[in-house]
Amino acid sequence: MEQDLTSLAAAVAELQASVSAINGTFAETFYYLTIPLMVLIHVGFLAYEMGASRSKNALASGIKNILAFAMIVPFFYFVGWWIYWAFPTGLTLSEGAMGISGIAYANSIALPWSEYMGPNLDDRSSGVFWGAFVLFAATTASIMSGGVIERIKLTGFVVLAIILGAFVWILAGAWGWHADGWLVTQFGYHDFGAAGVVHMIAGFFTLGVLINLGPRIGKFNADGSANHIAGHSMPMTLIGLMLIIAGFWGFLMGCVIVPGEAWSWSGTIEGTIYGTPMTISGMTFNTLMGFAGGIIGAWMVTRDPFWMMSGALGGIISCAAGLDLWYPPMAFMIGFIGASAMPFVATFIEKRGIDDAVGAFAVHGFLGMWGLLAVGIAAQGYPALFGEDVITTSFTGQLVGAVVMALLGFVPGYVVSFVLKVTGQLRVPEEAEILGLDAVKVPANAYPEGLHASVSPAE
Amino acid sequence: MEQDLTSLAAAVAELQASVSAINGTFAETFYYLTIPLMVLIHVGFLAYEMGASRSKNALASGIKNILAFAMIVPFFYFVGWWIYWAFPTGLTLSEGAMGISGIAYANSIALPWSEYMGPNLDDRSSGVFWGAFVLFAATTASIMSGGVIERIKLTGFVVLAIILGAFVWILAGAWGWHADGWLVTQFGYHDFGAAGVVHMIAGFFTLGVLINLGPRIGKFNADGSANHIAGHSMPMTLIGLMLIIAGFWGFLMGCVIVPGEAWSWSGTIEGTIYGTPMTISGMTFNTLMGFAGGIIGAWMVTRDPFWMMSGALGGIISCAAGLDLWYPPMAFMIGFIGASAMPFVATFIEKRGIDDAVGAFAVHGFLGMWGLLAVGIAAQGYPALFGEDVITTSFTGQLVGAVVMALLGFVPGYVVSFVLKVTGQLRVPEEAEILGLDAVKVPANAYPEGLHASVSPAE
Amino acid sequence: MEQDLTSLAAAVAELQASVSAINGTFAETFYYLTIPLMVLIHVGFLAYEMGASRSKNALASGIKNILAFAMIVPFFYFVGWWIYWAFPTGLTLSEGAMGISGIAYANSIALPWSEYMGPNLDDRSSGVFWGAFVLFAATTASIMSGGVIERIKLTGFVVLAIILGAFVWILAGAWGWHADGWLVTQFGYHDFGAAGVVHMIAGFFTLGVLINLGPRIGKFNADGSANHIAGHSMPMTLIGLMLIIAGFWGFLMGCVIVPGEAWSWSGTIEGTIYGTPMTISGMTFNTLMGFAGGIIGAWMVTRDPFWMMSGALGGIISCAAGLDLWYPPMAFMIGFIGASAMPFVATFIEKRGIDDAVGAFAVHGFLGMWGLLAVGIAAQGYPALFGEDVITTSFTGQLVGAVVMALLGFVPGYVVSFVLKVTGQLRVPEEAEILGLDAVKVPANAYPEGLHASVSPAE
Repeated sequence: MEQDLTSLAAAVAELQASVSAINGTFAETFYYLTIPLMVLIHVGFLAYEMGASRSKNALASGIKNILAFAMIVPFFYFVGWWIYWAFPTGLTLSEGAMGISGIAYANSIALPWSEYMGPNLDDRSSGVFWGAFVLFAATTASIMSGGVIERIKLTGFVVLAIILGAFVWILAGAWGWHADGWLVTQFGYHDFGAAGVVHMIAGFFTLGVLINLGPRIGKFNADGSANHIAGHSMPMTLIGLMLIIAGFWGFLMGCVIVPGEAWSWSGTIEGTIYGTPMTISGMTFNTLMGFAGGIIGAWMVTRDPFWMMSGALGGIISCAAGLDLWYPPMAFMIGFIGASAMPFVATFIEKRGIDDAVGAFAVHGFLGMWGLLAVGIAAQGYPALFGEDVITTSFTGQLVGAVVMALLGFVPGYVVSFVLKVTGQLRVPEEAEILGLDAVKVPANAYPEGLHASVSPAE
Repeated sequence: MEQDLTSLAAAVAELQASVSAINGTFAETFYYLTIPLMVLIHVGFLAYEMGASRSKNALASGIKNILAFAMIVPFFYFVGWWIYWAFPTGLTLSEGAMGISGIAYANSIALPWSEYMGPNLDDRSSGVFWGAFVLFAATTASIMSGGVIERIKLTGFVVLAIILGAFVWILAGAWGWHADGWLVTQFGYHDFGAAGVVHMIAGFFTLGVLINLGPRIGKFNADGSANHIAGHSMPMTLIGLMLIIAGFWGFLMGCVIVPGEAWSWSGTIEGTIYGTPMTISGMTFNTLMGFAGGIIGAWMVTRDPFWMMSGALGGIISCAAGLDLWYPPMAFMIGFIGASAMPFVATFIEKRGIDDAVGAFAVHGFLGMWGLLAVGIAAQGYPALFGEDVITTSFTGQLVGAVVMALLGFVPGYVVSFVLKVTGQLRVPEEAEILGLDAVKVPANAYPEGLHASVSPAE
Repeated sequence: MEQDLTSLAAAVAELQASVSAINGTFAETFYYLTIPLMVLIHVGFLAYEMGASRSKNALASGIKNILAFAMIVPFFYFVGWWIYWAFPTGLTLSEGAMGISGIAYANSIALPWSEYMGPNLDDRSSGVFWGAFVLFAATTASIMSGGVIERIKLTGFVVLAIILGAFVWILAGAWGWHADGWLVTQFGYHDFGAAGVVHMIAGFFTLGVLINLGPRIGKFNADGSANHIAGHSMPMTLIGLMLIIAGFWGFLMGCVIVPGEAWSWSGTIEGTIYGTPMTISGMTFNTLMGFAGGIIGAWMVTRDPFWMMSGALGGIISCAAGLDLWYPPMAFMIGFIGASAMPFVATFIEKRGIDDAVGAFAVHGFLGMWGLLAVGIAAQGYPALFGEDVITTSFTGQLVGAVVMALLGFVPGYVVSFVLKVTGQLRVPEEAEILGLDAVKVPANAYPEGLHASVSPAE
């Protein structure tokens, strides 16, 4: 029997190793898969923005987008990741209660010469987490990208994209999307799906840039009334937007902490990034319901396919902060309300002389804010952190968070674009804008032959 | 030693919790991933249908598709899911042998106020299963969508899409794609990959609608001969179809029950939705072989890239009912035969004055039926249910299933579209059709500038 | 206590079964998911090549691509898979040290009548591995496909695609991408991400074909200077290339052996196909950094969006052989250097009268070689095989590998295309090329209506 016990103990030890291995491989794969899905977001943004540009600017819009994605990667490697771990408690660089923040912690795990910043057989999570965050960063920059098309200078844009993607959003993430983040620990800020830290930040940053960038030539008439400047291919734009929806599911996976790892909050259930328990299953209900509500709301208000697909995004964004919490019909309503209001917000800022080419502020800035406040209105009193006797969600907390996100997005966007403007790096020359950016800047042609009818259509 | 035993027992208990957690998280992730993949089906349908429309109708086709997807979500939440669990035994609402059907069961798990219909920390499966089914529903509606483009009224279409996606297909699913379904328990009906419950239902429903909807103006000449009305962008259509192929793999994942959960059929091996054992690995062989056979068959008959890509879908659909069973070269042949016949079926119905703009009936209705019958011909005698001494697959069972699916698809499609026709909600006015639906109905323009040559091509 | 022990033993046995099941289902799902992701590569190639063709040839390019994919499937089923297992030790068909190669082994697992070549409840890996390899094969053929557009005959192309995808690349795989492969066991050849066995093979094969195929009419002037023949839709091409990036993540998953299965190298950590330990996490760092370096390098040299996106691919390919090994900033530099050189290589071969329509040789052939040599230069001395006291990576080994891959790609490409040329099956008639392949060969039209302005643009 002694022997039985020994062999049983060996079997148990072997099982423990095996379970640990499968947990690790599963978690690694889970976050890895967020990346190709989020690359689909970028395929989508590429199609969307090229389609939303007039053909004379289509390639310039694409180049901008591709280059921003590329630039963010090394900046996020060298700086962004470190910021996320260093700044949660504010600007003091001190360690927070969970012990996963502050300068010492950041130095140990996120400096480029840290053992965790490259292949390491003893670390099967840093690379995939970092990768998911890089894609979040690139997504944040792409949100701005659409609003500023057809007149921004490539240099200026790339600087803005790097600042937004590798500095601003990740500071917002440290503050509001981290268990030691001061917005969370002090205000119970709850932002499961990054409505504030990604969407508001990107939307308000864009607003700040647009003020300095100014409208496209021809956007406004002498009397201040606005013209609609349509892109050259609405089908390309719609296909792009639907691809973003496909990729959105990867983005949301990246907001979940899976159980069973040493770094997991729980051994048995998924958590939010704050450690509060949630399920992927529940999030699925709400994502689909918010998506549907957003499309239907935008359709009822506009009948316009561009706004319908923007409403699909907008519906999910409206629900994003509380995707772990909503009752699904509530998610439908929150998406519906948000997306119904969205076109009016777009018109409102247009009336103020701001030319947001794709409604980036209305979709991301405004609806991200609506998402945060909706949690404050309808999901108060949930624990905001892992553990017992913790701070809970509240309207105040969400409001404080929304104000911080608005400012943290707007101010750097405004200031940096102002500096770029003053130094002549923000906007292309008038002649280039009129001639088209592709003709002036791009050694290639979007449609070299144009397209001419080869047979007459049946009708 | 007593102590050793106690500590070992503790280790085992911990392992049990850990294994249960990883099983649960894996299963949840597995079904979750079906959703972004099936969203790719919708990206594909969007591109495919806009490309297959003349440019004057491209956006109207897109709007139709987007809105149908959105509308199906809440209807499936409030009604569709309940139907699936309530009706397996027929229209009696009684409980079946497996104990997972009937009105009491449906009321307990699928009414909107059920604890299983929203975020619930004790339920990590309902949302992801529901989500996968919603995407199946939306796919079913999208199949119809292609056939009716360029003349259907949006209102009428949305009604038809909701009826098809949230009522008809899910009733078919209850009857033939559920372990308590009467077609399964009484006839041994086998339809692993939804050849009948999705493809036949959608194809025959579309046929019923097309009869009442009538052909596009200009489709048929006075002497009854048909004109080919080509869409405005074949490349867009082909790209869309290949995206549907990418998404198809997600659809097929949604047909598999993974092992290891309380709700799984087996602790060790995947099952079909009926509980019969199968492997994802075997299904992979057959999906690729059917795909290849379909393309090659369609190519040999037509040389037309539209039919080749439709044959790619058609080859998989031909094999779908028995994807768990075929010997791979057999799957190739079944796909090849089906896709070779497909263009003739399209011509056949065209000769009868029916204008199916994308061959939806030939690809989905006819090949879904071929897939069901192929199981009856070449895969008789397999157990149709979990357990021992169960009913087996047979030609009769498949034939009965095919007849039921044909009727369950056709009759509602015909009746509802007839009612819509009589009430003037089915078809746009003649002027709108001639002018183009986009000009009349859509506050946006597919290609506002058109595209003109900016340099002369090299040749 | 005896009883406790018995019940504990039962619990352990149950756990063992459960862990084995979850390991199996996870591994099966892991490889399964590579397939839809790699289908995205094919969506991408389809868009890319059609966009890179003049509109008169767009559909012919698409057909070629679709048909090659389809043809490779059955050939890989009947022949390719067998080659992979039969030939690792060279042409002797002998068994290698690991015991997973040679004619007896290949006959037992890879002949079409083997129990492993179809659905089998006791085999949950063959189908998904085979499927992933089929997609690798199709990718290899698609790489060639782009270079030869606008003048190759469909018959000739399909023959070449089958030879490349179902014979040549898989022989290269047997030699250099298999733990019994002679390049590995004798030279320590290391090619984690298939830089040699996929990219060099495809690139050099294409080069061989291009020599016999000759340039497109109008490509070169009488004085030997080259004209740029632009495709008809650069946006379509760019979207396609970004889709290939999304799919690339699936390709890389297919290069990883997950732990925990009977066939795994380790019970606890992922391995390369050679069994050397690695992590998905480390690979993620390097993939993103190589991607970024590639775009930035190509941008600095060309400013051309086509080369930027080719540089995105090229950056990953440059790092592919050592994706498991690089320090991430090193991966950035390797991608940057490779992609900066790439346009010069394209110009170099163009100067020699070779018309590679999309730079397939520069991107895949040249950068695959650079990737292999980079491992030889900067990652010498790593174990090249599983176990202790094994052969290590070296410059010589990588160089030998590169030479073998160059020859194994080039020679069959040159010889087979020469035979096709002599027999008149390689190139379309001059009239067809001038008129456009679509008009002559395809019973469909890419853009039947052309696209004409319906409103005047705002500017």
